[in-house]
Amino acid sequence: MRILIKNIDEIHSSGTKVRQEQFILIEDNKIKRIDKMTKIDEISDYDRIIDADGMIALPGFINTHTHAAMTLMRAYADDMPLDQWLQNKIWPFESKIKPDDIYWGTALAVVEMIKTGTTTFSDMYFAVDKIAEIVDQSGMRAVLSEGLIEANDGQEGLKKSLNYALKYNNSAEGRIKTMMAPHAPYTCGRDYLLQIKELARENNLGLHIHLSESKNEVNNFLQQYQKSPIKYLADLDFFDDNHILAAHCVHLEAGDLEILKEKNVHVAHNPMSNAKLANGIAPVREYLKNEINVALGTDGVSSNNSLAMLKEAKMASYLQKIKYQDPTAVDTKSMLKILTVNGAEALGIKKLGLLEENQLADLLLIDTKKDSFFYPHHNNLSNLFYAADSRSIDTVIIDGKVIMESSELKRLDQEKIFYEAEKRALKIAANFN
Amino acid sequence: MRILIKNIDEIHSSGTKVRQEQFILIEDNKIKRIDKMTKIDEISDYDRIIDADGMIALPGFINTHTHAAMTLMRAYADDMPLDQWLQNKIWPFESKIKPDDIYWGTALAVVEMIKTGTTTFSDMYFAVDKIAEIVDQSGMRAVLSEGLIEANDGQEGLKKSLNYALKYNNSAEGRIKTMMAPHAPYTCGRDYLLQIKELARENNLGLHIHLSESKNEVNNFLQQYQKSPIKYLADLDFFDDNHILAAHCVHLEAGDLEILKEKNVHVAHNPMSNAKLANGIAPVREYLKNEINVALGTDGVSSNNSLAMLKEAKMASYLQKIKYQDPTAVDTKSMLKILTVNGAEALGIKKLGLLEENQLADLLLIDTKKDSFFYPHHNNLSNLFYAADSRSIDTVIIDGKVIMESSELKRLDQEKIFYEAEKRALKIAANFN
Repeated sequence: MRILIKNIDEIHSSGTKVRQEQFILIEDNKIKRIDKMTKIDEISDYDRIIDADGMIALPGFINTHTHAAMTLMRAYADDMPLDQWLQNKIWPFESKIKPDDIYWGTALAVVEMIKTGTTTFSDMYFAVDKIAEIVDQSGMRAVLSEGLIEANDGQEGLKKSLNYALKYNNSAEGRIKTMMAPHAPYTCGRDYLLQIKELARENNLGLHIHLSESKNEVNNFLQQYQKSPIKYLADLDFFDDNHILAAHCVHLEAGDLEILKEKNVHVAHNPMSNAKLANGIAPVREYLKNEINVALGTDGVSSNNSLAMLKEAKMASYLQKIKYQDPTAVDTKSMLKILTVNGAEALGIKKLGLLEENQLADLLLIDTKKDSFFYPHHNNLSNLFYAADSRSIDTVIIDGKVIMESSELKRLDQEKIFYEAEKRALKIAANFN
Repeated sequence: MRILIKNIDEIHSSGTKVRQEQFILIEDNKIKRIDKMTKIDEISDYDRIIDADGMIALPGFINTHTHAAMTLMRAYADDMPLDQWLQNKIWPFESKIKPDDIYWGTALAVVEMIKTGTTTFSDMYFAVDKIAEIVDQSGMRAVLSEGLIEANDGQEGLKKSLNYALKYNNSAEGRIKTMMAPHAPYTCGRDYLLQIKELARENNLGLHIHLSESKNEVNNFLQQYQKSPIKYLADLDFFDDNHILAAHCVHLEAGDLEILKEKNVHVAHNPMSNAKLANGIAPVREYLKNEINVALGTDGVSSNNSLAMLKEAKMASYLQKIKYQDPTAVDTKSMLKILTVNGAEALGIKKLGLLEENQLADLLLIDTKKDSFFYPHHNNLSNLFYAADSRSIDTVIIDGKVIMESSELKRLDQEKIFYEAEKRALKIAANFN
């Protein structure tokens, strides 16, 4: 299958100058050629053509940390103190969720992610088999992991989680990768952490973990172990010989930054969730200055409450400007990198996140003529990140397949997904009314 | 003209319990009746009917501080230090703007405001006659003021500004009100401020002013006058016997809060602009606790970069949660109040901002079935403020007239406005390339 995208106004890809009046030729799941429209006559053999006049192209957004099925709990509990929110609302609700509910909750999340320009997501939840099923059907790219909480999951859960990781790694024509996911250093004991780490290393799987999310977490570790959670994991050699994806990393103690850098830990930054739960603002500019890889995530919708990466990007940039009292902090070019190629690196997926020849064909076409947000056209990237919303996302291509066109999903039955997710979520909530 | 809106799923209006399965009858520019669908047979005489099945109704959003024509400078300069941004980019660009450009720039803003649910805006800019013209044509409600900078405008500008204020006050079937607008205490001398204040008082016009926006502004006043800008204005009796709309109020010195409360100053809070320019987070929760009226504004798009009040609302709430390290700070009910009735109060417009009988008929119908953002329907208000974007705004009614329906503008030629605003903005920018 060869798809020719012609008349692209601009191509934005990290580290490359903006290219104007271009075409992109996709062959199977890769970008075969990118060149100027003046050379399009050299392409004669293709199966379909897309006219991108008035549009810009950029790599698909990569959401490096979410719990997709938590869409079921969107707006179920908001504006509450963290402990009450978890203990009285989120955990009781979660205890009633069945695997089929996870399928439909994830499906709802997948609809929203595609419509808002996400092409790859990294998930930590339960019932990975159900999640893999909808990822496969939807055409999305994903990194899946089963979150392990020692008191709930123990050895049996660990075994199941490893089986899923091995079974689904490289499935769905290679679109699904897997990781192991000890939930957090405060929900997994020392031996359990080391056991998971060792299994991940043996099977060449990365590790996905929550880390230094709240001030409370850090203070508890300082009190109990006289060291931060990051230093605690480093002293266990948890970070060694593994690919590590650490979500949040909001609060650093002295020495923590150096550990993250030395151990090549990849940070999944979740600014909206950190704001909503009042956890604070992660030192993203500091990470970037120290060449620590930072990517972006939405976290679950119950603490967000959306999966829209454009919202997340604006929030990320503006919060850094506030944190450092500096309007130059994390500009739109840095944000493009964070949303795309940094995400690919954080998930350990090669040839992803750039619009270059021989890269995986995951890309967005953004309509810059339809909505007011792009007028005037002084700077399309700034208009996209600082003004636009999901209305302007026209086409989503993942692994060389057209997944959305003219803002309409091509593979999923949106009405059915809305119906099933709604029915199941309201039924669970009815238990607690 | 009588419009009957039937089958409304929910009505959200500040201070009233959510009402389900309702109808609204509009007569001329007022809400005549709101009642349960079971009583709709009592209504027989109407000119048109709107079916709001699957929709919620709420008062239109009120943007209390913007410089609408600055859409011409959207994305013209971003991520820059404040002084370079103003001196090298914004001011030179503004010096080339002609009155007709202001007409088209404001028209572009009006398109965006209607599409994102704003029904009333409060503007401070130049060429108020041109702004009044597009407000009149568009059907929007607005409070217009000509910003006065003493060194630029002097006595002549003041005279012109007063003439505009008197000419356009209560024009456009009463949809336009006017204020006087000394730009800021640091751009208008003491005598000039008092002269404007006195003219406003004599003519029963409110005052719109920028106040305590940056730390730098406050520090300069402390150094020069040994008092904050707020105390400085209070000591001039500037706040006495006038309706005062003060934009920003980010930085308070001891005693300032008490002055704002005692003088009944209305605060236009602009969280996105304050973040983008790295000015900080205003103490909104503190204002609300002290019963100081706080409304929301977007500021000009050059420091935002959009006019979408839903984005502004989420930002406002989440920034307060960060500032006070408290996830309960400024919840969705408070946000509804801030976006609607507080805005009306801040602008001194009576019978606006609530969906109640005998109020002005400015309202939105939000489609909660079309987009993923409202699924599941645990809480529509939370889904609107924390998850949705402009895609879900279906119908906008202002002063009893349908201004947007099925997300399509009914009165304005959007293509023409995009074309003219773009042409003029790029032409001005070309002067500096």
